[in-house]
Amino acid sequence: MNIHDKLAELGLTLPDPPKAVAAYVPAAQVNGMVIVSGQLPMQDGQLTVTGPVPSKASLEASERAARTCVLNALAVVDPLLDGDWSRLVRVVRIGVFVASDPTFTDQHLVANGASELLVKLLGEQGRHARAAVGVQSLPLGASVEIEFTFQVK
Amino acid sequence: MNIHDKLAELGLTLPDPPKAVAAYVPAAQVNGMVIVSGQLPMQDGQLTVTGPVPSKASLEASERAARTCVLNALAVVDPLLDGDWSRLVRVVRIGVFVASDPTFTDQHLVANGASELLVKLLGEQGRHARAAVGVQSLPLGASVEIEFTFQVK
Amino acid sequence: MNIHDKLAELGLTLPDPPKAVAAYVPAAQVNGMVIVSGQLPMQDGQLTVTGPVPSKASLEASERAARTCVLNALAVVDPLLDGDWSRLVRVVRIGVFVASDPTFTDQHLVANGASELLVKLLGEQGRHARAAVGVQSLPLGASVEIEFTFQVK
Repeated sequence: MNIHDKLAELGLTLPDPPKAVAAYVPAAQVNGMVIVSGQLPMQDGQLTVTGPVPSKASLEASERAARTCVLNALAVVDPLLDGDWSRLVRVVRIGVFVASDPTFTDQHLVANGASELLVKLLGEQGRHARAAVGVQSLPLGASVEIEFTFQVK
Repeated sequence: MNIHDKLAELGLTLPDPPKAVAAYVPAAQVNGMVIVSGQLPMQDGQLTVTGPVPSKASLEASERAARTCVLNALAVVDPLLDGDWSRLVRVVRIGVFVASDPTFTDQHLVANGASELLVKLLGEQGRHARAAVGVQSLPLGASVEIEFTFQVK
Repeated sequence: MNIHDKLAELGLTLPDPPKAVAAYVPAAQVNGMVIVSGQLPMQDGQLTVTGPVPSKASLEASERAARTCVLNALAVVDPLLDGDWSRLVRVVRIGVFVASDPTFTDQHLVANGASELLVKLLGEQGRHARAAVGVQSLPLGASVEIEFTFQVK
């Protein structure tokens, strides 16, 4: 089953890919790798979850935010593959930044929201190396930011 | 126009490249990529901007700090290219860390200081993927640290 | 002298490699590079050092934690090389995240714990590019997390 069918099965759809902004780009390709810029949990131009975890955003909300970051990253990569995900070799790495209260130490659980969705959608090729850390704050007050490296052919 | 002329036009010069320090190096090359270590806003051996944004360093000062990080990175790469920037394929990625007060959420504006200077100096090849996050604190009290990946030939 | 002899000389041993966890993997390979997931200072299934530096973990303890992260990363890579470290081309990059009090600005000293051990064990090939930043908090309350990129043949 391809990724678009799996998305539909999960009741998910890819958003429109983000527009290129002024001075940086949604993704850069090098040596068969696609480096995707840090994605925020944006949906229809709005952040779905904001503020530090857990005082302003619950663990559940931040896991959901992580999944939204994944959908946004897939929306960036989809047109680069002309929608043909058989060209994906694997997800190589994700870097997960969680806006965190000083005592919050479950960043790995937030990151699991992203990791598990990648595996659900992409199978073995969705399995990746990962770093997850708790930061002070993120652009626009987002609760989660995730950057991605994909290998494609 | 080449990068050295553009720098001159902007009234900028590349600093002396940082010396290799004890146990790590300013840049590592792999597969035609140059990975530049996290650069601080050092000028003549001194940090130009310190402390969290905005309580200790203004937004404007931190944008300036981001530009200084770029100049330091270019100073690292310049001798690796023997000063010949036609060997640059592109800037692939920058990772921007901004020392932030808990309520500061304009890390993307700080990062724009770096991104816009890269495009001004390097044109289309300066456009890159990017992650920008707000951290608790940085080495030596720097307000900004930026790491870089360049593709060269 | 090979890495296993050098470890013995320093009174160190590689731990058992971490098991693959649910949705992500200890390391992903791409283009002759091994990307190792963020390693915590785990020893025998327990974090050796927790809490922010320096209020909960001293500088010395956090340098020790950084060395433990290195051993855990080497334990991930060792089986991928069938224990033959002559297949290592170099350590390319480490990303060092230090759980930090707001006024702590010696993340580079913590990172030196990792960098110096890599050079001690791997010689010139252990020299790497590096970013070191101070974060709010880390998974499970770890004081240090380090991710690694190795080039192998």
